[in-house]
Amino acid sequence: CKKVATPEEIAPYLDSASVSWVDVRGLGSEDILRRVGQVFNLHPLVLEDVVNVPQRPKVEEYKDQLLIIARMVCPRSNEESGFISEQVSFILGKHYLLTVQEEPQIDVFNPVRDRIRTAKGIIRDQQADYLAYTLLDAIIDGFFPVLEDYGERIEELEEEVVENPTRSTIERIHKLKRELLSLRRAIWPQRDVINSLIRDGNPLIRDEVRVYLRDCYDHAIQILDIVETYREVASSLMDVYMSSVSNRMNEVMKTLTVISVIFIPLTFIAGVYGMNFNAEKSPWNMPELNWYWGYPICLLVMLAVASGLVIYFWRRGWFENLSGVRDERR
Amino acid sequence: CKKVATPEEIAPYLDSASVSWVDVRGLGSEDILRRVGQVFNLHPLVLEDVVNVPQRPKVEEYKDQLLIIARMVCPRSNEESGFISEQVSFILGKHYLLTVQEEPQIDVFNPVRDRIRTAKGIIRDQQADYLAYTLLDAIIDGFFPVLEDYGERIEELEEEVVENPTRSTIERIHKLKRELLSLRRAIWPQRDVINSLIRDGNPLIRDEVRVYLRDCYDHAIQILDIVETYREVASSLMDVYMSSVSNRMNEVMKTLTVISVIFIPLTFIAGVYGMNFNAEKSPWNMPELNWYWGYPICLLVMLAVASGLVIYFWRRGWFENLSGVRDERR
Amino acid sequence: CKKVATPEEIAPYLDSASVSWVDVRGLGSEDILRRVGQVFNLHPLVLEDVVNVPQRPKVEEYKDQLLIIARMVCPRSNEESGFISEQVSFILGKHYLLTVQEEPQIDVFNPVRDRIRTAKGIIRDQQADYLAYTLLDAIIDGFFPVLEDYGERIEELEEEVVENPTRSTIERIHKLKRELLSLRRAIWPQRDVINSLIRDGNPLIRDEVRVYLRDCYDHAIQILDIVETYREVASSLMDVYMSSVSNRMNEVMKTLTVISVIFIPLTFIAGVYGMNFNAEKSPWNMPELNWYWGYPICLLVMLAVASGLVIYFWRRGWFENLSGVRDERR
Amino acid sequence: CKKVATPEEIAPYLDSASVSWVDVRGLGSEDILRRVGQVFNLHPLVLEDVVNVPQRPKVEEYKDQLLIIARMVCPRSNEESGFISEQVSFILGKHYLLTVQEEPQIDVFNPVRDRIRTAKGIIRDQQADYLAYTLLDAIIDGFFPVLEDYGERIEELEEEVVENPTRSTIERIHKLKRELLSLRRAIWPQRDVINSLIRDGNPLIRDEVRVYLRDCYDHAIQILDIVETYREVASSLMDVYMSSVSNRMNEVMKTLTVISVIFIPLTFIAGVYGMNFNAEKSPWNMPELNWYWGYPICLLVMLAVASGLVIYFWRRGWFENLSGVRDERR
Amino acid sequence: CKKVATPEEIAPYLDSASVSWVDVRGLGSEDILRRVGQVFNLHPLVLEDVVNVPQRPKVEEYKDQLLIIARMVCPRSNEESGFISEQVSFILGKHYLLTVQEEPQIDVFNPVRDRIRTAKGIIRDQQADYLAYTLLDAIIDGFFPVLEDYGERIEELEEEVVENPTRSTIERIHKLKRELLSLRRAIWPQRDVINSLIRDGNPLIRDEVRVYLRDCYDHAIQILDIVETYREVASSLMDVYMSSVSNRMNEVMKTLTVISVIFIPLTFIAGVYGMNFNAEKSPWNMPELNWYWGYPICLLVMLAVASGLVIYFWRRGWFENLSGVRDERR
Repeated sequence: CKKVATPEEIAPYLDSASVSWVDVRGLGSEDILRRVGQVFNLHPLVLEDVVNVPQRPKVEEYKDQLLIIARMVCPRSNEESGFISEQVSFILGKHYLLTVQEEPQIDVFNPVRDRIRTAKGIIRDQQADYLAYTLLDAIIDGFFPVLEDYGERIEELEEEVVENPTRSTIERIHKLKRELLSLRRAIWPQRDVINSLIRDGNPLIRDEVRVYLRDCYDHAIQILDIVETYREVASSLMDVYMSSVSNRMNEVMKTLTVISVIFIPLTFIAGVYGMNFNAEKSPWNMPELNWYWGYPICLLVMLAVASGLVIYFWRRGWFENLSGVRDERR
Repeated sequence: CKKVATPEEIAPYLDSASVSWVDVRGLGSEDILRRVGQVFNLHPLVLEDVVNVPQRPKVEEYKDQLLIIARMVCPRSNEESGFISEQVSFILGKHYLLTVQEEPQIDVFNPVRDRIRTAKGIIRDQQADYLAYTLLDAIIDGFFPVLEDYGERIEELEEEVVENPTRSTIERIHKLKRELLSLRRAIWPQRDVINSLIRDGNPLIRDEVRVYLRDCYDHAIQILDIVETYREVASSLMDVYMSSVSNRMNEVMKTLTVISVIFIPLTFIAGVYGMNFNAEKSPWNMPELNWYWGYPICLLVMLAVASGLVIYFWRRGWFENLSGVRDERR
Repeated sequence: CKKVATPEEIAPYLDSASVSWVDVRGLGSEDILRRVGQVFNLHPLVLEDVVNVPQRPKVEEYKDQLLIIARMVCPRSNEESGFISEQVSFILGKHYLLTVQEEPQIDVFNPVRDRIRTAKGIIRDQQADYLAYTLLDAIIDGFFPVLEDYGERIEELEEEVVENPTRSTIERIHKLKRELLSLRRAIWPQRDVINSLIRDGNPLIRDEVRVYLRDCYDHAIQILDIVETYREVASSLMDVYMSSVSNRMNEVMKTLTVISVIFIPLTFIAGVYGMNFNAEKSPWNMPELNWYWGYPICLLVMLAVASGLVIYFWRRGWFENLSGVRDERR
Repeated sequence: CKKVATPEEIAPYLDSASVSWVDVRGLGSEDILRRVGQVFNLHPLVLEDVVNVPQRPKVEEYKDQLLIIARMVCPRSNEESGFISEQVSFILGKHYLLTVQEEPQIDVFNPVRDRIRTAKGIIRDQQADYLAYTLLDAIIDGFFPVLEDYGERIEELEEEVVENPTRSTIERIHKLKRELLSLRRAIWPQRDVINSLIRDGNPLIRDEVRVYLRDCYDHAIQILDIVETYREVASSLMDVYMSSVSNRMNEVMKTLTVISVIFIPLTFIAGVYGMNFNAEKSPWNMPELNWYWGYPICLLVMLAVASGLVIYFWRRGWFENLSGVRDERR
Repeated sequence: CKKVATPEEIAPYLDSASVSWVDVRGLGSEDILRRVGQVFNLHPLVLEDVVNVPQRPKVEEYKDQLLIIARMVCPRSNEESGFISEQVSFILGKHYLLTVQEEPQIDVFNPVRDRIRTAKGIIRDQQADYLAYTLLDAIIDGFFPVLEDYGERIEELEEEVVENPTRSTIERIHKLKRELLSLRRAIWPQRDVINSLIRDGNPLIRDEVRVYLRDCYDHAIQILDIVETYREVASSLMDVYMSSVSNRMNEVMKTLTVISVIFIPLTFIAGVYGMNFNAEKSPWNMPELNWYWGYPICLLVMLAVASGLVIYFWRRGWFENLSGVRDERR
């Protein structure tokens, strides 16, 4: 496991019986990539696919070589949500594996590197195809922590959408849906890649390794299942949000209606006895104003009207709903 | 049917002609599982799949062995809704069946155990593959009580959504949809497992048992059908909820509007005759106040306006709808 | 065509060259069913499928026998909506056809019985497989009257949803969707049953009968098509209902807004001149009250404000919409 | 090209080497159809499919004959929207083609008839299978004018839904969706019909004609594509309608709120100074009424409150939105 | 690379060993197209497909020729959104490639022309099939700039829908969905075209070129993926828009309700003390008006009521939400 200065230094290792893993990190220098291409004798289309990112994950057979384009994801290390996605190209030969990563910094291969260095596990005695499987497996398993992040975000949103839906909630649900779509676009073709590695019977992949790839394939399907489930939950969450907003509007409307409907007739009654019809000109002009019990009767009538309306709303269950919501939710 | 102290005690039984069923309950001790693995000569990937739960249900062929990963569900025993889900791994050999359960306490195998103990049915004379079928069948049939629970919950929600929709209703519908998604994720791959047991022609499964597995397969499809139907009903329920909330808002708005629209003009009239224009300065300043029939005419005008509006609303059918709802619903 | 007292009486007919149709109606007595099973030499799984209803429609081959599980529907005879669904199991042998019905009372086989009794058509000269086709065809054709019922209900709902949407409308649409889901679950697997009867090449079905089954298959697909169309129409109806409710709310809101917005400024003006500022203390205190034309000017201002607002609403087209709706609908 | 009086007159033409096209228009007389069936030696199921309309489009092979059921659509000639749909049955023999149309009046075959009469094109020298292709092609191409009608209606609705959504808009969208569903049900199986004519290798269809049928198949797929696109556009239109209605409600609410919120506090202030507390009893009782600048200050306070609220609404952008909508739309 | 005056001038080039590319731009003159057809010896159906635009993209084999119908898109050069779509027909022979474009002005072939002219790349030494691949690849790659346009428009809409949703937003989302549907209809069959070029084993396409077409196929799938993702994002945007509108309505309603509910009881109290009951006739008639502290107490009561309501709304979190929205959004 060493760093080489120039691509040409790799050449002598390629035909030796031992397995060589060449890991090119970063697509910065086109010149170096072209020289790597010459050393490994790559088809021009292979080089193009490796360099022009993003490509869709795929597997393609060339003479003596197998090109596997994979997509690696890992959760953002900082506090932002979302995930980083990066293309990893595998060129698998008989005795070597060339991997080219888009980003130099981030990858999910450290556990594999550790296992090789410490000669732990069976990885050192194995061929290039087993190494390719191990790296693919690391890439697939790298989706699980990202999915766990999304699982937690969904749970947060589920709580927020009911307890305290704000305007930003819907944005976050939309963003979640969008990212899950990207995630699906990353994992879906990867499943096909692994499947064709298992089925196509390329001689570069031995049958022992195919058994392991089956396991990797199951994990890819499991990830797809979870992504699809999350997408449906997110869609349902949008409906819950909408109905939560409607419920709140309903509550607001009820408050307005109860208060308005109770006070509007009372205010009208008060308005009537605020009129200035001249009682002196006629016994029919507002005689109530001069009654002995006029004012108390008027107040009693108001009280009766208000009580009647309160009872009416009570019976329709408007009050229950206003206050009962919180208890019910528990 | 006995408990063994150490995994090694099982070894002598495995090659005997009679069928041995070894049931490991709980994944607590890794050490024991590793020793079990050695006794049964398990492939490292098999052991990994058995231990790392949850795996997706699947069937995989190994030399002389068949690994079946299944998912068992049973309704929660307490009053909570939802279901418990647990992974059961089958390792089927020529003369033995090893099952490993995730949880030590709960399973749906008791009827099978009873049948073996009491030697009831044809189960005792059968081979390991028939035993595996019996257990798979018990797992599949274990979905039906869970589905019945959901059927009841859907009926409760259907009533609630129309009679008395509260804010928690929508949460419960969302939770239901989520759980049905989990249920589907549990049963869907199981169907594929049984299908490949029927079709793949593995010699460990005899043709007689395949006839029985066909029956098991039909049940799996039936469960899937019901789950899908329930999911569509739950989606439709969300729409019903939304329209139920809209209807209630409509009713609230109508109440507010009817009362407001009737009283606002009346209050305005009362307001006009509450103005203090000085009638003494000019004959044009509010002469109505000094009319003999001023006040009664004013009240009559108010009555006329109110009646006119009530009739208008009556004709548009606003009142019918307010009160007619309850009768109609029957 | 006669009734037998005990299942054993049937035995002598089964091996004769003529075709025997044994129709067991109702699953009431387990004992009789077991004896029937012995007479017909049924596989235990067949008997189980026949007795444990509901099973999913399916076809299964056994030695010398073909088990067909079908689902028969017919419209409710009383005024209730919905349909009755019942399992019919066919056991087809070389010279006999055993049918077991779930319910003793209802079936759609009477036309077939009539044709046999009156020796009308070619049915009497045919073999057991043709008889099975005739009964399957009767079952499939029995879906059409049920579908016609639903077609009528959809048209009623389409009218109701626009003309007079009430709270029960949405319930009825939801119920309709649910029942269409059940109907689909009944017909979908039946289509597969007929298809595998046509394709699987079982010797119990002769090629002449396969030609007829193709026709039956086309009808099954036609039914499925109609069910799917109805389901989409029902979904669209829910959206129409929602927008119909929103439209009504809009109309209510407009009424409230027009009246409120017109009268609120007027009431304010009336309120201002109802204030009791003492005009004697200062020439600035409400001199309008003592003007000669005070009151008429005040009324004119009110009229101007009201007219302005009416014209504003008119221009925005609020009135058109309120009244124009009815005419437009024609 | 001539009219025959009785079906039996056709018989001599059928075995001649030249191609005979017999076109039966209308299913009115069962007797004639039966006699046609005898002349052409039709299988009873063929006759049944021809007579019992509507059948699903399909192709079925019989001895020496090919039954093709197709569905022909044409736009309504009058001003009503929608389309007329009619079943056309083809019975293709070696030297003859029998077509049976449901409706006597309408068909899309006139251009073909013209080409035969005028001996234009290659049609006269061709066999019966080429004639069948020509008619099928005319039927498929007959969908395009219907689709153009729908395209125009969708564009009208798109404009209406934004400019002036009324209650009848949603009905029209719903009706459009329903008719598109019917159209899809008409074209979908037709595509399969043409596909199986191409692939099934029936000797009645020569390879030269298969090349032409491929073209016809492409058109069928194109029609399906357009129908599906229209259906999705119609679904999206419903959402646009809903949000258009919501927007209008929002605008109505804003108008109400702005006016109410501005005038409610002013009316309250006017109400306060309309109170009749006796200023003579106490210096604390409404001394403002007797201030020299009382009334002007009161009016200034009202003006300040109103201005404050107007500025507040201005800042929240409520006014912009009310008036800005129209300009923006351009 | 030269312009020819008449179609017949091309004839001598066609049989030469070198590759001829004839590019007919524009379908204006039918006569010329017919003469081109004669020179190239085209099947009448080929000529028909070339002339009658739009055809669905497809590939069809004729004797010694391969017809490929493709659809080329490019973004509008002016400021309008959307894309221009144009049919390009390829007729591939052994030593020639005839391309017919719908529009004379616009195409995406300039880079290919440049490469041929400057003899750059391997394109000059290649056969006609490689040239066809190069042009198809240019067409497929021409979708990417269009997609980038849509990506930007989606991001603009995402921001607009949350920050400042107007009535035209929903129209733009609807238009976006419609255009994405057209784009999908353009790319979907193109994918099938390339796939059948790869798989069908036509001798006109050499295996070396098939390797290149695989790359082209991957790009077509990638474009389809992106279109589907964009469509789902646009659908989700519509939901976000709806909830954004609902949120705004909620805010408007809250403003109205808070102000109304606070002032309605106060106005009622003011109304009560504006009544004119005659205090001189009875000690019960509005004695408050003559109290020493009457007016201050009345104002204090009003203040208490207002404060109580403000606190009530505060506790329910109505104010937080009104003002808190902006900060939260950041």
